[in-house]
Amino acid sequence: MLIEPKVLKGFRDFLPEKEIKRKKIIKILEKTFKNFGFQPIDTPALEYREVLLGKGGGETDKQVYAFKDNGNRDVALRFDLTVPFARFMAAHLNDLTLPFKRFHIDKVWRGENTQRGRYREFIQCDFDIVGLDNASADFEILQLMQASFKAMGITNITVKINHRGIFNDFLFYINASEKAVEVMRIVDKIAKIGKEKVTESLSSLLNMESALKIVDFIEPSGTFKETLDKITFLSGGESENTERVRTVYEYMKDLGIESGFELDPSITRGLDYYTGIVYETLLNDLPGLGSVCSGGRYNNLASVYTKKDLPGVGSSIGLDRLLAGMEELDLLQKYDTGFDLIILNFEDSSISHNHSIAAAVRESGLSCEVYHSKKKLRTQFAYSEKKNIRFTIICGPDELESDTVTLKNISTRENYNKISLPEAITIIKRFEDTKIDK
Amino acid sequence: MLIEPKVLKGFRDFLPEKEIKRKKIIKILEKTFKNFGFQPIDTPALEYREVLLGKGGGETDKQVYAFKDNGNRDVALRFDLTVPFARFMAAHLNDLTLPFKRFHIDKVWRGENTQRGRYREFIQCDFDIVGLDNASADFEILQLMQASFKAMGITNITVKINHRGIFNDFLFYINASEKAVEVMRIVDKIAKIGKEKVTESLSSLLNMESALKIVDFIEPSGTFKETLDKITFLSGGESENTERVRTVYEYMKDLGIESGFELDPSITRGLDYYTGIVYETLLNDLPGLGSVCSGGRYNNLASVYTKKDLPGVGSSIGLDRLLAGMEELDLLQKYDTGFDLIILNFEDSSISHNHSIAAAVRESGLSCEVYHSKKKLRTQFAYSEKKNIRFTIICGPDELESDTVTLKNISTRENYNKISLPEAITIIKRFEDTKIDK
Repeated sequence: MLIEPKVLKGFRDFLPEKEIKRKKIIKILEKTFKNFGFQPIDTPALEYREVLLGKGGGETDKQVYAFKDNGNRDVALRFDLTVPFARFMAAHLNDLTLPFKRFHIDKVWRGENTQRGRYREFIQCDFDIVGLDNASADFEILQLMQASFKAMGITNITVKINHRGIFNDFLFYINASEKAVEVMRIVDKIAKIGKEKVTESLSSLLNMESALKIVDFIEPSGTFKETLDKITFLSGGESENTERVRTVYEYMKDLGIESGFELDPSITRGLDYYTGIVYETLLNDLPGLGSVCSGGRYNNLASVYTKKDLPGVGSSIGLDRLLAGMEELDLLQKYDTGFDLIILNFEDSSISHNHSIAAAVRESGLSCEVYHSKKKLRTQFAYSEKKNIRFTIICGPDELESDTVTLKNISTRENYNKISLPEAITIIKRFEDTKIDK
Repeated sequence: MLIEPKVLKGFRDFLPEKEIKRKKIIKILEKTFKNFGFQPIDTPALEYREVLLGKGGGETDKQVYAFKDNGNRDVALRFDLTVPFARFMAAHLNDLTLPFKRFHIDKVWRGENTQRGRYREFIQCDFDIVGLDNASADFEILQLMQASFKAMGITNITVKINHRGIFNDFLFYINASEKAVEVMRIVDKIAKIGKEKVTESLSSLLNMESALKIVDFIEPSGTFKETLDKITFLSGGESENTERVRTVYEYMKDLGIESGFELDPSITRGLDYYTGIVYETLLNDLPGLGSVCSGGRYNNLASVYTKKDLPGVGSSIGLDRLLAGMEELDLLQKYDTGFDLIILNFEDSSISHNHSIAAAVRESGLSCEVYHSKKKLRTQFAYSEKKNIRFTIICGPDELESDTVTLKNISTRENYNKISLPEAITIIKRFEDTKIDK
């Protein structure tokens, strides 16, 4: 009896065309991170449950894949790359030079409900600067976010920025500090549930006056600078926190990259560990997809594992959600999935010769495969076309005798009869490709 | 109370230097596979337990990380990339064109005992051709193995080849077919336990006469061709199987790549699913490490999931074991882990200017970071040296006024005072790097 070859709900196979594109995007990101001086690290997919989820006998987070291994250890699959990074920093402090700029691109697992752009296995791309608490580092993460999207061919984005500290100052100023965490949780939902529902929830948490003040505070008004001036005023005047945002904005203007950045006081990011600047990134043509790159400043990240102060700032691209968005917006077409050349099989007796040609072509830097079996040429062309191979070479008896090849451009149907192999290579190389990251 | 930031036994963190090298090796392999027309795929890390381990209520394989998820499904982490690939082929047959040439480089998990080069989480690099049963495909996998190692900068290897079918023909010829599986298991251990122990075991399984015949059969004698002639004779004469090996060897000779390939009749590969040619790869300077790239032909790979015939041939590089070997042999030094340039912080007021310089340098294709805080220059140089950055730029008041920069080559200590930024970029680019895959 056969076993059904199915995958788990929320998990996916990637067929070549999509996987080639995903890999190219990852390559572009890695290159961009490297260009900014960020270094890659790796951590295990599986960790001690306590290390990932903390102490305490509370109910296991339902979203986490946790189990006992064969040695009876409580283990769990990582659900993000941030917690393992905090653990990593604490474990290797003596071997690392601060500031430490790292990136990490890999899979994480969450057993959450599946929906558009949400899967149970997905790739995150994290980049962080640890060991600094200043505007230059905050700025660099934002700059790198913009540069990463540009490198991927995505320019129509909005990065929404806020500062947790200014919001806290404001809450203190209106005497609502005690409920800060609850307020942030409610405010965080505004994009989903709307202004009215947020006012209602805040009013029952505090009172109508405070609710209205908060709703006024979180409403952007005008330019970045105008909104900053407004929340500076509402939070009791200039402070270290407003100064920080002001300086980051100055850097943006100095570099001429300020467009695309918005100050949005409603952005709080649900997670408790943020202490300073926070941000989200929306595709302007697909805002309903949610944030595709979020993060912020956390100044006590590794405090669960070490007493050493490790301020940090970072961001994370949800690659699989982004891919879903790019697919919907036809932004993946720019990524080439093709190959340069195939040597077709005209007769089995020349297979050795075909392998020799292929080896010589590869030496020139082009990709080249041989068709391994004697099938109808029509079948071989269909294979080549399906695989998005650009050129074919046929080497029949005439070509063998004259030490030439016959080259064909599959898409233009152009033929180059009995030319030398170096000529063929030159023609293929001349075929300029306009796709991203050929 | 702090939580100890420890990782599970057999699992590892990768710090930047090592991770950069591992990533570069992966990039080289991906490029090599692509040059041969292989396409990447991805499959989930977690699958239904039954899909990975088959039906039957037998004891769970102790090496597999299997558990019940929150939805009470029996799931398991993949322990290799071959079984998921077979499942993948069965699931997507209608969407794929045969022959299908894929590669897959990713982590797998096995709870086995840890020892040199063996971990519980490790990366495998698989490449396979499915849908063909001929010498050209067999040859291409062997050719690609050699090309991959060459591309990684590893040339002192031996690929040991055998053919399961010839061995079976021989066992049939000496009337030992019934015990074929047990014989292969014993023979497979010869490198570990030695010839005498193998003879002993075989003799108790069969009899001394057969044992001696088998031990004679598995002993290589002379060149590839001489050994092939010998086992052809001992297995009852020329057959489809000996012809196959002969043709593969002809292709190797035609392409002039036969050196480094050995015919070794003792290679059987323990796994049941191989049906034809099999091979292992040893680092000649570190044979005790075991095989770093193994595989073979399997003609019934996906038969658990589909009735469709899917003959295949493939190979798998054990990347983490190979890395351990390369480290021991100092073969990783060739891989560059450095960055091009850092703009040091001479005074905080010029941070914006420094970011502008860095942006311009990155536009030119070089990696460039800024030092974010005002520390002693000595501290900043130490950071740069530790991170293996090749050049520093300082932009003090004089440079600011004259719109120049002062460039320093960290390793040679050469200074270029007050030159223009384009000049600096030219100097950095001229600094030729002899490392692999800069």
